[in-house]
Amino acid sequence: MAVYTEVSDEELEAFVAGYDVGEVLSFKGIAEGVENSNYLLQTDHGQYILTLYEKRTKPEDLPFFLELMEHLAARGLACPTPLHGRDGRALRSLCGKPAAMVSFLNGMSARRLTLDHCAALGAAMAQMHLAGADFARSRPNDLSVAGWRPLFDAEKHRADQVKAGLADSIAAELDFLEANWPRQLPSGLIHADLFPDNVFFHGHDVSGIIDFYFACTDALTYDIAICLNAWCFETDGSFNATKARMMLNGYRKVRALSAEELAALPILARGAAMRFLLTRLYDWVNTPAGALVKRKDPLEYYRKLRFHQGISGPGAYGIE
Amino acid sequence: MAVYTEVSDEELEAFVAGYDVGEVLSFKGIAEGVENSNYLLQTDHGQYILTLYEKRTKPEDLPFFLELMEHLAARGLACPTPLHGRDGRALRSLCGKPAAMVSFLNGMSARRLTLDHCAALGAAMAQMHLAGADFARSRPNDLSVAGWRPLFDAEKHRADQVKAGLADSIAAELDFLEANWPRQLPSGLIHADLFPDNVFFHGHDVSGIIDFYFACTDALTYDIAICLNAWCFETDGSFNATKARMMLNGYRKVRALSAEELAALPILARGAAMRFLLTRLYDWVNTPAGALVKRKDPLEYYRKLRFHQGISGPGAYGIE
Repeated sequence: MAVYTEVSDEELEAFVAGYDVGEVLSFKGIAEGVENSNYLLQTDHGQYILTLYEKRTKPEDLPFFLELMEHLAARGLACPTPLHGRDGRALRSLCGKPAAMVSFLNGMSARRLTLDHCAALGAAMAQMHLAGADFARSRPNDLSVAGWRPLFDAEKHRADQVKAGLADSIAAELDFLEANWPRQLPSGLIHADLFPDNVFFHGHDVSGIIDFYFACTDALTYDIAICLNAWCFETDGSFNATKARMMLNGYRKVRALSAEELAALPILARGAAMRFLLTRLYDWVNTPAGALVKRKDPLEYYRKLRFHQGISGPGAYGIE
Repeated sequence: MAVYTEVSDEELEAFVAGYDVGEVLSFKGIAEGVENSNYLLQTDHGQYILTLYEKRTKPEDLPFFLELMEHLAARGLACPTPLHGRDGRALRSLCGKPAAMVSFLNGMSARRLTLDHCAALGAAMAQMHLAGADFARSRPNDLSVAGWRPLFDAEKHRADQVKAGLADSIAAELDFLEANWPRQLPSGLIHADLFPDNVFFHGHDVSGIIDFYFACTDALTYDIAICLNAWCFETDGSFNATKARMMLNGYRKVRALSAEELAALPILARGAAMRFLLTRLYDWVNTPAGALVKRKDPLEYYRKLRFHQGISGPGAYGIE
């Protein structure tokens, strides 16, 4: 939840005048997207999401993200479509920050995940992977295996404040991941942050995928591994293998997974757990106590990592 | 800005089924209203605001607020109109909290206040006072002069932590206000929290007044005194007498102000400044450092109080 930047009347008016969207009827900050400021703008033409990119999104990456959304939307994926201003540009500026306006998507993120949600997610993710196959740009995943060690080094002296022995556990796991990380898997455009917050449903059908601001080029199965972590654990920490199977089966109905891809899932899932463990740990130890941001528990992902470490193979994810 | 309560899919579905509003298309937490959780609900019938009443709104006061909004809307005032459920009730329950659904109002609160905004506010406030004249219920203003001393007593031992000498200044002012508070002014329904956040504009016209959760029965001119504080000071602390004159003239075109009412404005403005000084001071010293709420500077209202103490009479508010 976030609205970091207050937009004045004059600034909004001048910004909206740069688009062919009609007259403003209402403008409300919405509790969506942790990283940026998001507003719901209603005009007599329709509804739009106006995003101001705050410090965590690198300005030089924004053309990639905006062009990607446009590319995916043009291929029929339900995702926000950037609007172009009267000058043709999709990336503009508001309150001294990069800003863009995108189409509004109906639907709601699922707050209680069901098997049907997981199946629909799997299919939508595979459709996204296929739709991204001919996207011309690429962007390295700076939060993959090569990025974890520097992230850990910056915080390891404080990791044991969160849990005794955590620094050693992470160091050992990083050794393992660095030595064994699969590098020959089919690669392409991945979302890389496909958490339940970023998927809208209408009933049990996916009505939209949002928040492409971590999208990058990496193993397609790494997206699946992130979703195994983000969608298939219950709130009590238990792993729901049926949800995993539903998600994987939903995916495979749209895009086949090779034997190599299936075999790599456990280590990819360990890596995905490590990625969120490390960024949450970083935020945990670096967020001032008075900040207007709710810190997320890094140990949730430590426990998920421990689960993936303990399984005997991809069969634990419900693969027949 | 606030969304305190997370509503699950099932809870929302069950709640919405209690109304004749069609099928849910989207549901977003909005950064509006400091005291309660607000959601923008879109259905195939239209747009609504769903409010969950958090701890600061007393449940026993809710029928007053909801009936008042319904009364004012029926008299043509642009304000949220509560929806009645299929069972006829406007006040319902969601996630174990009192909840209501109201109509959505177009327009935006003014972020930079102009003279035109102040004139329009004055007229809209007077229309609200006239529309409330025949509202049958009443509710005492527990944040008026009788309520200030207990509020101060609870925090006076910490007031000097905010500013040296503050406790003594407040105590002396309370003595003055208690001894001189006018009690015979025309009374009726007042909003009692008519800050710029709570007034929507379309261009320079008022398109709606929201957030009636402090509304009560008190001197009508006390509402004006609150607005003198909330609308007529510049961000540098200076008082803009032209804004005050525009607001008062806008008001008087709709509802005449008697000589007694005009004469009472300075003390009412001191009282209004005291009310927000005390509640902000209370929040300031009682809000834990890690809370997800931005504390507002109590000294802003101390400086406003000092301004009103220093004027020679209501002429300082631009009254000819």
